[in-house]
Amino acid sequence: MLRLYDFHESGNGYKVRLLLAWLGLPYERVELDILRGETRRPEFLALNPNGRIPLLVLEDGRRLAESNAILFHLAQGTPFWPTSAFEQAEVLQWMFFEQYSHEPYVAVVRFWTFAGQLEAHAAELPERRRRAEAALDVMEGHLAARSYFVGERCSIADVALYAYTHVAHEGGFDLAARPAIRAWLERVASQPGTVAIDAVGPD
Amino acid sequence: MLRLYDFHESGNGYKVRLLLAWLGLPYERVELDILRGETRRPEFLALNPNGRIPLLVLEDGRRLAESNAILFHLAQGTPFWPTSAFEQAEVLQWMFFEQYSHEPYVAVVRFWTFAGQLEAHAAELPERRRRAEAALDVMEGHLAARSYFVGERCSIADVALYAYTHVAHEGGFDLAARPAIRAWLERVASQPGTVAIDAVGPD
Repeated sequence: MLRLYDFHESGNGYKVRLLLAWLGLPYERVELDILRGETRRPEFLALNPNGRIPLLVLEDGRRLAESNAILFHLAQGTPFWPTSAFEQAEVLQWMFFEQYSHEPYVAVVRFWTFAGQLEAHAAELPERRRRAEAALDVMEGHLAARSYFVGERCSIADVALYAYTHVAHEGGFDLAARPAIRAWLERVASQPGTVAIDAVGPD
Repeated sequence: MLRLYDFHESGNGYKVRLLLAWLGLPYERVELDILRGETRRPEFLALNPNGRIPLLVLEDGRRLAESNAILFHLAQGTPFWPTSAFEQAEVLQWMFFEQYSHEPYVAVVRFWTFAGQLEAHAAELPERRRRAEAALDVMEGHLAARSYFVGERCSIADVALYAYTHVAHEGGFDLAARPAIRAWLERVASQPGTVAIDAVGPD
Protein backbone atom coordinates (compact mmCIF):
# COMPACT_ATOMS: atom_id res chain seq x y z
CA MET A 1 0.00 0.00 0.00
CA LEU A 2 1.10 3.59 -0.58
CA ARG A 3 2.53 5.27 2.52
CA LEU A 4 2.34 9.05 3.00
CA TYR A 5 4.54 10.82 5.53
CA ASP A 6 2.46 13.85 6.40
CA PHE A 7 1.59 16.56 8.94
CA HIS A 8 -2.12 17.11 9.42
CA GLU A 9 -1.99 20.94 9.27
CA SER A 10 0.18 21.02 6.14
CA GLY A 11 -1.39 22.25 2.94
CA ASN A 12 1.43 20.56 1.01
CA GLY A 13 0.41 17.27 2.64
CA TYR A 14 -3.25 18.07 1.96
CA LYS A 15 -2.57 18.40 -1.78
CA VAL A 16 -1.59 14.74 -1.86
CA ARG A 17 -4.44 13.64 0.46
CA LEU A 18 -6.94 15.46 -1.76
CA LEU A 19 -5.76 13.91 -5.02
CA LEU A 20 -5.56 10.43 -3.43
CA ALA A 21 -9.16 10.89 -2.27
CA TRP A 22 -10.35 12.03 -5.73
CA LEU A 23 -8.60 9.01 -7.26
CA GLY A 24 -9.97 6.64 -4.63
CA LEU A 25 -6.50 5.30 -3.83
CA PRO A 26 -6.00 3.71 -0.39
CA TYR A 27 -2.87 4.66 1.60
CA GLU A 28 -1.50 4.66 5.09
CA ARG A 29 -0.57 7.93 6.74
CA VAL A 30 2.41 8.50 9.03
CA GLU A 31 2.01 11.72 11.03
CA LEU A 32 5.15 13.72 11.76
CA ASP A 33 4.86 16.86 13.88
CA ILE A 34 6.97 19.48 12.14
CA LEU A 35 6.50 21.81 15.11
CA ARG A 36 8.37 19.27 17.27
CA GLY A 37 11.13 18.76 14.69
CA GLU A 38 10.06 15.25 13.80
CA THR A 39 10.98 15.74 10.12
CA ARG A 40 14.58 16.62 11.09
CA ARG A 41 15.29 13.39 12.98
CA PRO A 42 17.84 10.94 11.55
CA GLU A 43 15.29 8.21 10.82
CA PHE A 44 13.26 10.57 8.60
CA LEU A 45 16.30 12.27 7.04
CA ALA A 46 17.33 8.78 5.90
CA LEU A 47 14.08 8.73 3.87
CA ASN A 48 14.13 12.38 2.73
CA PRO A 49 17.47 14.17 3.20
CA ASN A 50 15.69 17.49 2.66
CA GLY A 51 13.71 16.86 5.87
CA ARG A 52 10.26 17.77 4.60
CA ILE A 53 6.81 16.24 4.37
CA PRO A 54 4.96 15.15 2.31
CA LEU A 55 6.96 12.11 1.29
CA LEU A 56 5.29 9.30 -0.65
CA VAL A 57 6.66 5.76 -0.42
CA LEU A 58 5.48 3.40 -3.18
CA GLU A 59 4.70 -0.27 -2.59
CA ASP A 60 8.13 -1.25 -3.93
CA GLY A 61 9.88 1.14 -1.53
CA ARG A 62 10.73 3.90 -4.01
CA ARG A 63 10.36 7.35 -2.46
CA LEU A 64 9.20 10.66 -3.86
CA ALA A 65 9.43 14.06 -2.15
CA GLU A 66 8.01 17.49 -3.08
CA SER A 67 4.23 17.73 -3.03
CA ASN A 68 3.91 18.86 -6.64
CA ALA A 69 6.18 16.08 -7.96
CA ILE A 70 4.03 13.60 -6.03
CA LEU A 71 0.89 15.09 -7.62
CA PHE A 72 2.51 14.74 -11.06
CA HIS A 73 3.26 11.07 -10.39
CA LEU A 74 -0.18 10.19 -9.06
CA ALA A 75 -1.96 12.10 -11.85
CA GLN A 76 -0.33 10.27 -14.77
CA GLY A 77 -3.02 8.63 -16.88
CA THR A 78 -5.86 10.39 -15.02
CA PRO A 79 -8.03 13.35 -16.09
CA PHE A 80 -6.05 15.60 -13.74
CA TRP A 81 -3.01 15.60 -16.08
CA PRO A 82 -3.72 16.96 -19.57
CA THR A 83 -2.76 15.05 -22.70
CA SER A 84 -1.68 18.16 -24.65
CA ALA A 85 2.08 18.78 -24.31
CA PHE A 86 1.60 22.54 -24.07
CA GLU A 87 -1.13 22.24 -21.45
CA GLN A 88 1.15 19.94 -19.44
CA ALA A 89 3.76 22.72 -19.44
CA GLU A 90 1.08 25.24 -18.42
CA VAL A 91 0.04 23.01 -15.51
CA LEU A 92 3.66 22.90 -14.36
CA GLN A 93 3.96 26.68 -14.85
CA TRP A 94 1.20 27.20 -12.29
CA MET A 95 2.66 24.58 -9.94
CA PHE A 96 6.04 26.36 -9.99
CA PHE A 97 4.20 29.65 -9.47
CA GLU A 98 2.56 28.03 -6.43
CA GLN A 99 5.83 26.92 -4.87
CA TYR A 100 7.78 30.10 -5.67
CA SER A 101 5.32 33.01 -5.59
CA HIS A 102 2.40 31.75 -3.47
CA GLU A 103 3.34 29.14 -0.83
CA PRO A 104 6.26 31.07 0.73
CA TYR A 105 3.86 33.94 1.43
CA VAL A 106 0.26 32.68 1.76
CA ALA A 107 1.22 29.43 3.51
CA VAL A 108 4.09 30.74 5.60
CA VAL A 109 2.02 33.58 7.09
CA ARG A 110 -0.70 31.03 7.95
CA PHE A 111 1.94 28.77 9.54
CA TRP A 112 3.36 31.63 11.61
CA THR A 113 -0.19 32.42 12.72
CA PHE A 114 -1.08 28.98 14.06
CA ALA A 115 2.45 28.33 15.37
CA GLY A 116 2.30 31.56 17.41
CA GLN A 117 5.31 32.98 15.54
CA LEU A 118 3.87 36.24 14.15
CA GLU A 119 5.71 38.34 16.73
CA ALA A 120 8.99 36.57 16.07
CA HIS A 121 8.68 37.40 12.36
CA ALA A 122 7.28 40.94 12.73
CA ALA A 123 10.04 42.51 10.60
CA GLU A 124 9.41 40.21 7.63
CA LEU A 125 5.62 40.11 7.91
CA PRO A 126 4.64 43.19 5.82
CA GLU A 127 6.70 42.03 2.81
CA ARG A 128 5.36 38.46 3.12
CA ARG A 129 1.81 39.83 3.22
CA ARG A 130 2.46 42.11 0.23
CA ARG A 131 3.72 39.21 -1.85
CA ALA A 132 0.85 36.96 -0.76
CA GLU A 133 -1.65 39.61 -1.89
CA ALA A 134 0.23 39.94 -5.20
CA ALA A 135 0.01 36.17 -5.78
CA LEU A 136 -3.73 36.19 -5.02
CA ASP A 137 -4.15 39.11 -7.45
CA VAL A 138 -2.41 37.13 -10.22
CA MET A 139 -4.78 34.21 -9.54
CA GLU A 140 -7.86 36.48 -9.55
CA GLY A 141 -6.84 38.01 -12.88
CA HIS A 142 -6.25 34.61 -14.48
CA LEU A 143 -9.48 33.08 -13.18
CA ALA A 144 -11.65 36.07 -14.14
CA ALA A 145 -12.21 34.52 -17.59
CA ARG A 146 -11.65 30.84 -16.77
CA SER A 147 -13.16 27.97 -14.80
CA TYR A 148 -9.85 26.28 -13.94
CA PHE A 149 -6.18 27.23 -14.29
CA VAL A 150 -5.48 25.27 -17.49
CA GLY A 151 -7.61 23.99 -20.35
CA GLU A 152 -11.00 24.56 -18.70
CA ARG A 153 -10.78 21.35 -16.69
CA CYS A 154 -9.63 20.53 -13.18
CA SER A 155 -5.96 19.54 -13.08
CA ILE A 156 -3.21 19.15 -10.51
CA ALA A 157 -2.47 22.86 -11.02
CA ASP A 158 -5.82 23.49 -9.32
CA VAL A 159 -5.02 20.99 -6.55
CA ALA A 160 -1.67 22.69 -5.88
CA LEU A 161 -3.19 26.18 -5.71
CA TYR A 162 -6.38 25.15 -3.88
CA ALA A 163 -4.54 23.68 -0.88
CA TYR A 164 -3.35 26.93 0.69
CA THR A 165 -5.77 29.33 -1.03
CA HIS A 166 -8.87 27.75 0.52
CA VAL A 167 -7.42 28.34 4.01
CA ALA A 168 -5.85 31.73 3.19
CA HIS A 169 -8.23 33.37 5.70
CA GLU A 170 -6.40 31.46 8.46
CA GLY A 171 -3.40 33.66 7.63
CA GLY A 172 -5.55 36.80 7.65
CA PHE A 173 -6.07 37.09 3.89
CA ASP A 174 -9.44 38.32 2.68
CA LEU A 175 -10.94 36.87 -0.50
CA ALA A 176 -14.09 39.03 -0.33
CA ALA A 177 -12.89 41.28 -3.16
CA ARG A 178 -11.77 38.30 -5.26
CA PRO A 179 -14.97 36.73 -6.64
CA ALA A 180 -13.23 34.70 -9.34
CA ILE A 181 -11.07 32.92 -6.74
CA ARG A 182 -14.12 32.27 -4.54
CA ALA A 183 -16.10 30.76 -7.43
CA TRP A 184 -13.10 28.62 -8.41
CA LEU A 185 -12.66 27.39 -4.81
CA GLU A 186 -16.27 26.18 -4.86
CA ARG A 187 -15.74 24.53 -8.25
CA VAL A 188 -12.68 22.62 -6.99
CA ALA A 189 -14.34 21.67 -3.70
CA SER A 190 -17.31 20.22 -5.60
CA GLN A 191 -15.16 17.51 -7.25
CA PRO A 192 -16.45 14.07 -6.22
CA GLY A 193 -14.50 12.66 -3.28
CA THR A 194 -13.23 15.94 -1.85
CA VAL A 195 -11.97 15.66 1.73
CA ALA A 196 -11.39 18.52 4.16
CA ILE A 197 -7.90 19.63 5.19
CA ASP A 198 -8.82 18.78 8.79
CA ALA A 199 -10.32 15.38 7.94
CA VAL A 200 -7.28 13.84 9.61
CA GLY A 201 -5.97 14.80 13.01
CA PRO A 202 -2.62 14.18 14.67
CA ASP A 203 -2.18 10.48 15.36
CA MET B 1 11.29 32.01 -34.11
CA LEU B 2 11.22 31.44 -30.36
CA ARG B 3 11.45 34.65 -28.34
CA LEU B 4 12.93 34.68 -24.83
CA TYR B 5 12.30 37.58 -22.45
CA ASP B 6 15.37 37.47 -20.25
CA PHE B 7 17.80 39.34 -17.98
CA HIS B 8 21.46 38.62 -18.66
CA GLU B 9 22.46 38.13 -14.99
CA SER B 10 19.51 35.82 -14.20
CA GLY B 11 20.27 32.17 -13.52
CA ASN B 12 16.62 31.39 -14.20
CA GLY B 13 17.05 32.94 -17.65
CA TYR B 14 20.35 31.10 -18.08
CA LYS B 15 18.64 27.73 -17.52
CA VAL B 16 16.63 28.33 -20.69
CA ARG B 17 19.58 29.77 -22.65
CA LEU B 18 21.68 26.72 -21.71
CA LEU B 19 19.09 24.15 -22.79
CA LEU B 20 18.36 26.06 -26.00
CA ALA B 21 22.11 26.00 -26.74
CA TRP B 22 22.40 22.26 -26.04
CA LEU B 23 19.41 21.64 -28.32
CA GLY B 24 20.76 23.94 -31.02
CA LEU B 25 17.51 25.89 -31.18
CA PRO B 26 17.69 29.45 -32.52
CA TYR B 27 15.81 32.18 -30.64
CA GLU B 28 15.69 35.91 -30.22
CA ARG B 29 16.39 37.45 -26.82
CA VAL B 30 14.62 40.46 -25.36
CA GLU B 31 16.62 41.91 -22.46
CA LEU B 32 14.63 43.38 -19.55
CA ASP B 33 16.54 44.98 -16.67
CA ILE B 34 14.88 43.72 -13.50
CA LEU B 35 16.98 46.17 -11.46
CA ARG B 36 15.22 49.02 -13.29
CA GLY B 37 11.76 47.48 -12.87
CA GLU B 38 11.35 46.66 -16.56
CA THR B 39 9.49 43.40 -15.76
CA ARG B 40 6.86 45.35 -13.79
CA ARG B 41 5.84 47.66 -16.63
CA PRO B 42 2.36 47.33 -18.12
CA GLU B 43 3.58 46.13 -21.51
CA PHE B 44 5.39 43.16 -19.92
CA LEU B 45 2.68 42.46 -17.31
CA ALA B 46 0.33 42.03 -20.28
CA LEU B 47 2.56 39.12 -21.37
CA ASN B 48 3.28 37.70 -17.88
CA PRO B 49 0.99 38.99 -15.12
CA ASN B 50 3.44 37.60 -12.53
CA GLY B 51 6.03 40.10 -13.79
CA ARG B 52 9.01 37.76 -14.03
CA ILE B 53 11.54 36.63 -16.57
CA PRO B 54 12.21 34.22 -18.19
CA LEU B 55 9.17 34.16 -20.43
CA LEU B 56 9.18 32.10 -23.62
CA VAL B 57 6.95 33.08 -26.54
CA LEU B 58 6.41 30.34 -29.12
CA GLU B 59 6.18 31.01 -32.84
CA ASP B 60 2.38 30.87 -32.68
CA GLY B 61 2.29 33.45 -29.87
CA ARG B 62 1.59 31.09 -26.97
CA ARG B 63 3.48 32.12 -23.84
CA LEU B 64 5.07 30.11 -21.06
CA ALA B 65 6.46 31.47 -17.78
CA GLU B 66 8.48 29.83 -14.97
CA SER B 67 11.96 28.70 -15.95
CA ASN B 68 11.42 25.06 -14.98
CA ALA B 69 8.12 24.78 -16.87
CA ILE B 70 9.91 26.20 -19.93
CA LEU B 71 12.67 23.58 -19.52
CA PHE B 72 9.99 20.86 -19.31
CA HIS B 73 8.41 22.07 -22.54
CA LEU B 74 11.66 22.37 -24.50
CA ALA B 75 12.95 19.00 -23.24
CA GLN B 76 9.99 16.91 -24.43
CA GLY B 77 11.23 14.26 -26.84
CA THR B 78 14.91 14.99 -26.10
CA PRO B 79 17.42 13.00 -23.98
CA PHE B 80 17.07 15.63 -21.23
CA TRP B 81 13.60 14.34 -20.22
CA PRO B 82 13.53 10.67 -19.15
CA THR B 83 11.08 8.18 -20.64
CA SER B 84 10.44 6.37 -17.33
CA ALA B 85 7.37 7.76 -15.53
CA PHE B 86 9.03 7.49 -12.12
CA GLU B 87 12.24 9.17 -13.31
CA GLN B 88 10.12 11.98 -14.76
CA ALA B 89 8.64 12.51 -11.29
CA GLU B 90 12.14 12.42 -9.77
CA VAL B 91 13.32 15.08 -12.23
CA LEU B 92 10.41 17.28 -11.19
CA GLN B 93 11.13 16.54 -7.51
CA TRP B 94 14.61 18.06 -7.92
CA MET B 95 13.23 20.98 -9.94
CA PHE B 96 10.73 21.80 -7.18
CA PHE B 97 13.55 21.40 -4.64
CA GLU B 98 15.51 23.94 -6.71
CA GLN B 99 12.74 26.53 -6.73
CA TYR B 100 11.71 26.07 -3.08
CA SER B 101 14.83 25.09 -1.13
CA HIS B 102 17.74 26.34 -3.27
CA GLU B 103 16.94 29.37 -5.46
CA PRO B 104 15.41 31.56 -2.69
CA TYR B 105 18.68 31.22 -0.76
CA VAL B 106 21.62 30.55 -3.10
CA ALA B 107 20.32 32.82 -5.88
CA VAL B 108 18.82 35.55 -3.74
CA VAL B 109 22.03 36.05 -1.71
CA ARG B 110 23.96 36.27 -5.02
CA PHE B 111 21.42 38.81 -6.32
CA TRP B 112 21.67 40.94 -3.17
CA THR B 113 25.46 40.82 -3.56
CA PHE B 114 25.63 42.14 -7.10
CA ALA B 115 22.70 44.52 -6.60
CA GLY B 116 24.46 46.11 -3.60
CA GLN B 117 21.59 45.11 -1.28
CA LEU B 118 23.44 43.03 1.35
CA GLU B 119 23.26 45.85 3.91
CA ALA B 120 19.56 46.39 3.30
CA HIS B 121 18.91 42.69 4.01
CA ALA B 122 21.36 42.29 6.90
CA ALA B 123 18.69 40.94 9.29
CA GLU B 124 17.61 38.18 6.91
CA LEU B 125 21.05 37.29 5.62
CA PRO B 126 22.22 34.72 8.23
CA GLU B 127 19.06 32.60 7.81
CA ARG B 128 19.25 32.84 4.00
CA ARG B 129 22.89 31.73 4.14
CA ARG B 130 22.07 28.86 6.52
CA ARG B 131 19.36 27.56 4.20
CA ALA B 132 21.61 27.93 1.14
CA GLU B 133 24.29 25.84 2.86
CA ALA B 134 21.64 23.24 3.79
CA ALA B 135 20.50 22.98 0.16
CA LEU B 136 24.09 22.57 -1.03
CA ASP B 137 24.59 19.85 1.62
CA VAL B 138 21.53 17.96 0.32
CA MET B 139 22.98 18.16 -3.21
CA GLU B 140 26.43 17.00 -2.05
CA GLY B 141 24.93 14.00 -0.25
CA HIS B 142 22.85 13.01 -3.26
CA LEU B 143 25.69 13.39 -5.77
CA ALA B 144 28.23 11.51 -3.63
CA ALA B 145 27.18 8.24 -5.25
CA ARG B 146 25.81 9.55 -8.56
CA SER B 147 26.90 11.24 -11.77
CA TYR B 148 23.69 13.22 -12.32
CA PHE B 149 20.58 13.92 -10.26
CA VAL B 150 18.32 11.31 -11.86
CA GLY B 151 18.94 8.05 -13.71
CA GLU B 152 22.68 8.55 -14.29
CA ARG B 153 22.14 10.83 -17.25
CA CYS B 154 21.98 14.57 -17.70
CA SER B 155 18.41 15.89 -17.48
CA ILE B 156 16.64 19.20 -16.98
CA ALA B 157 16.97 18.58 -13.21
CA ASP B 158 20.71 19.11 -13.70
CA VAL B 159 20.10 22.20 -15.83
CA ALA B 160 17.84 23.70 -13.15
CA LEU B 161 20.32 23.07 -10.33
CA TYR B 162 23.44 23.93 -12.34
CA ALA B 163 22.30 27.47 -13.15
CA TYR B 164 22.75 29.01 -9.70
CA THR B 165 25.11 26.40 -8.20
CA HIS B 166 27.90 27.07 -10.68
CA VAL B 167 27.88 30.75 -9.70
CA ALA B 168 27.26 30.14 -5.97
CA HIS B 169 30.69 31.63 -5.20
CA GLU B 170 29.35 34.99 -6.44
CA GLY B 171 27.09 34.91 -3.36
CA GLY B 172 29.98 33.97 -1.10
CA PHE B 173 29.32 30.20 -0.98
CA ASP B 174 32.35 27.93 -0.89
CA LEU B 175 32.21 24.59 -2.72
CA ALA B 176 35.76 23.59 -1.69
CA ALA B 177 34.48 21.04 0.83
CA ARG B 178 31.89 19.68 -1.63
CA PRO B 179 33.83 17.55 -4.12
CA ALA B 180 30.77 15.73 -5.47
CA ILE B 181 29.13 19.02 -6.47
CA ARG B 182 32.37 20.23 -8.08
CA ALA B 183 32.74 17.04 -10.12
CA TRP B 184 29.09 17.24 -11.19
CA LEU B 185 29.47 20.91 -12.22
CA GLU B 186 32.33 19.87 -14.53
CA ARG B 187 30.26 17.00 -15.91
CA VAL B 188 27.33 19.31 -16.74
CA ALA B 189 29.59 22.02 -18.18
CA SER B 190 31.20 19.45 -20.51
CA GLN B 191 27.91 18.81 -22.36
CA PRO B 192 28.34 19.74 -26.04
CA GLY B 193 27.10 23.24 -26.77
CA THR B 194 27.43 24.68 -23.26
CA VAL B 195 27.34 28.47 -23.15
CA ALA B 196 28.49 30.67 -20.27
CA ILE B 197 26.02 32.59 -18.11
CA ASP B 198 27.74 35.82 -19.20
CA ALA B 199 27.78 34.90 -22.89
CA VAL B 200 25.12 37.55 -23.39
CA GLY B 201 25.33 41.07 -22.07
CA PRO B 202 22.67 43.73 -21.61
CA ASP B 203 21.43 44.84 -25.00
